[in-house]
Amino acid sequence: MSTQIPRTALQLRSLVRRGGELEVSLAEVEVPEPAADEVLVRIEATPINPSDLGLLFGAADLGQAKFSGSASRPVVTAPVPQKFMKAMAGRLDESMPVGNEGAGVVVKAGASPGAQALLGKTVAIIGGAMYAQYRSIKAEQCLRLPDDATPAEGASCFVNPLTALGMVETMKREGHSALVHTAAASNLGQMLNRICIQDKVALVNIVRKPEQADLLKTQGATFVCSTESPNFMAELTDALVATGATIAFDAIGGGKLAGQILTCMEAALNRTAKEYSRYGSTTHKQVYLYGMLDTSPTEFARSFGMGWGMGGWLLFPFLQKVGLAAAQKLRERVAAELKTTFASHYSKEVSLAGALQADAIAAYGKRATGVKYLINPSA
Amino acid sequence: MSTQIPRTALQLRSLVRRGGELEVSLAEVEVPEPAADEVLVRIEATPINPSDLGLLFGAADLGQAKFSGSASRPVVTAPVPQKFMKAMAGRLDESMPVGNEGAGVVVKAGASPGAQALLGKTVAIIGGAMYAQYRSIKAEQCLRLPDDATPAEGASCFVNPLTALGMVETMKREGHSALVHTAAASNLGQMLNRICIQDKVALVNIVRKPEQADLLKTQGATFVCSTESPNFMAELTDALVATGATIAFDAIGGGKLAGQILTCMEAALNRTAKEYSRYGSTTHKQVYLYGMLDTSPTEFARSFGMGWGMGGWLLFPFLQKVGLAAAQKLRERVAAELKTTFASHYSKEVSLAGALQADAIAAYGKRATGVKYLINPSA
Repeated sequence: MSTQIPRTALQLRSLVRRGGELEVSLAEVEVPEPAADEVLVRIEATPINPSDLGLLFGAADLGQAKFSGSASRPVVTAPVPQKFMKAMAGRLDESMPVGNEGAGVVVKAGASPGAQALLGKTVAIIGGAMYAQYRSIKAEQCLRLPDDATPAEGASCFVNPLTALGMVETMKREGHSALVHTAAASNLGQMLNRICIQDKVALVNIVRKPEQADLLKTQGATFVCSTESPNFMAELTDALVATGATIAFDAIGGGKLAGQILTCMEAALNRTAKEYSRYGSTTHKQVYLYGMLDTSPTEFARSFGMGWGMGGWLLFPFLQKVGLAAAQKLRERVAAELKTTFASHYSKEVSLAGALQADAIAAYGKRATGVKYLINPSA
Repeated sequence: MSTQIPRTALQLRSLVRRGGELEVSLAEVEVPEPAADEVLVRIEATPINPSDLGLLFGAADLGQAKFSGSASRPVVTAPVPQKFMKAMAGRLDESMPVGNEGAGVVVKAGASPGAQALLGKTVAIIGGAMYAQYRSIKAEQCLRLPDDATPAEGASCFVNPLTALGMVETMKREGHSALVHTAAASNLGQMLNRICIQDKVALVNIVRKPEQADLLKTQGATFVCSTESPNFMAELTDALVATGATIAFDAIGGGKLAGQILTCMEAALNRTAKEYSRYGSTTHKQVYLYGMLDTSPTEFARSFGMGWGMGGWLLFPFLQKVGLAAAQKLRERVAAELKTTFASHYSKEVSLAGALQADAIAAYGKRATGVKYLINPSA
C-alpha cells in the first residue's frame, strides 16, 4: 500500500443529457489538496445503497442500457423515458459525482491539529462523491473507526445504522410503542431486528419469501409475516394485535403493501374496540415510505378510518429535526457496536470499473434483498 | 305549529344485518323526557352531508336498492358486497340512528336555568341522531341562533363551517401560508372561499367543470383550476407558484388527484430551487383527505420527492386537538356570520319519509357538487 498520492484519480460520474440520455462513466479528476481543517481520504470501501441508485441511474431504463468504453474506463448509456424527464429537470447536463458514504485511510491532512490527528487512521465518512479514489472532507466530519476495523467494516457506518436507529427514535417521538418494517430481511432490516431485540422494542418484520422469514427467525425475530402467505393479512393483523404496533417503515413504496398495513392496523385496533365508530379507530396509524424498491404507483383503498397518515421519511431531515446532540449520540452507538449490531454483509466487492459492468448492474440494480455490492475504488 | 308533544315520534334508523343486508327505515320511538340540564328540540332542519352517508347507507350497493313499506313508513334495503362486510363488523345487527347536525325549536326544557333559558328558542345542535322528529340534548351543547334565524338557516352550523375554519386553522398551525381545496364549488368550498377572501389567505380552488369555476370566480375566487382542462397540471402548478400553497384538503379521496397535487407542489417548489436535490424539495408538502366523494382506491406515483405527507383529516379530532377555547372561538364566529360567510344552500327540502324515496336517494347519493338535501322531520 503506497502512500504516493497521484495528481489525478478516478471519480464515477452520472450525467443526464437534455436529449434524454443517461451516461455513467469514470472521470479523471484532480486529487484535491486538503485545506487546513480537511483530510484527504483514500476511499477503500463504499457501498451501493438503494439510496444511491436514484442519483446513479436517474430514471433511465436500464433494460436498454448500452455498454462501451474500455475495460478500465467503461461507459454505460441508457435512455430516460420521456415521462420521467420532468423529474430530472434539476440535474440536466450536469455531470454529477455519486456515492453517499464510504470508508478509507487518511493519506494527507491539513495543518490543523484535528486534521493531523487523523493521518494514517481509518475513517468513515458521508457526504456524497464517495465513488472515487480520493475524497477530501472536513476532519470533524470523519468518524474515526476502532483500530481493528477495516474500511469494509466501516463502509456502511451511516446510512443503514442511522436509518435503523432513526426509525426506533421516530417511533418513540411520535408516541408509538412498537413498529412494523418491510423488506425486513435486508441489511437494514437485520440491523433493525438486532436493535429492537437489544432495546426490547416489539418489531413486526414483513418479508416476501419463506427463506427470508427463516433467516430473521434464526436471528431472534419474534414476529415475521410473509406477503406470499395466503393468510398474510390475517397473520399481520395477529402480529399487530400482539405488539400494538401503529407505525410502519416501508422500503417498498409501490403497490398495495403500505395500504394493507394500515388496513391490518385498523383491524387490530377494532378487535379491541368497545363501540362502533363510523370514522374508524381514533388511534393514529402511520406508514412512512422511506424507500422505493417498487417504483410502481402506490395504491390503497382507505379501508382504515380517518386516523391515518402516509408520508416520506428520509434520514437527513430526521437528523436535522432531532438536532446535533441527539444525532451525535446515535453515531457514537454505531461506532461502539460496529462489528455486532451494525455489521453489514456484502455479496460482492468490485472496483469502480467493475461497478459499471453489465452483470454487476443487472445484479445490484434489481434492489433485491441480500444482494449488496461494495465498491473498492482503490482496488 | 302546535306545542303538543306526542308520546312517540319518528327516527330514521340504519341497520346492517350480519347476512349482508342494509335496511334503512323509520322507527317509532319514545320521545325522551329531558333531564334537568337538557332540552327537547323539535328538529325542523337537518342536512344530508357527505359525512352522513357513510353511516346512513354503510357500504351497501345502492344500485341494487329495493323500496318497500308505505309512503309514510318507507323501507329501503340493499345488499352490502361481501368485501366490505369486514369494515361493517362494528355495527352489525345494531339499528343505528343517523344525522350529524340539525336545528329546531326547544319545546321542553329541564329544570336547570340554562335549560329553561332556551325554551321556545331556535337552536343548532350536533351529536348524531338528528334524522328524527325530536332530540334531547344537554342545554350547554346548543348553539342559540340569532332571533331572526330560521332552523333551515342554522341547520348546517357545525360540520361545514367548522370544517372550513378548521382547514385554515390547520394550515396556520402546520406552518403553511396558503392552501388548496378540491371539490371547491361545494357548499363547504364556497364557504372556505368566503373565509379566505375575508382573512386574506390565498386559496387554490380545484373544480371539475368550467361552470363550477365560473361560479367561484363570480364569488371572488382568484385561483380556480379545472381538472377537465387539458393543461390542468400546468395551470395548477402556476397557481401553486403564485400562492406558495403547500397544503391541500381533498374531498375526493379516490383516484389520482391527491398525488397530482403533491406532484404540482413539488414542481412549483423546484421552479425556484437553486440546486438539484435527488430527494426533491425539502419543503414538506401535505394533502389531507377529508372526504371520499370518489370511493375508488387512491393512487399516486411518488414523483414529489420525500418531503410529503398524506393523511386523514376529520373535524372532531381537530377540535379535540385545538382544545375547548379555540373551538369555542370558531363556533362564535359561525353564529356571528351565519347569514353571510356561513350560509348554506339546499337543492331540495324533504320529509324523513321523503329522504328514503328512490329519486331522492339517487340524487343526494351521488354526492354531486351543488346537490344538497335538507330534511325537515317535522314536515
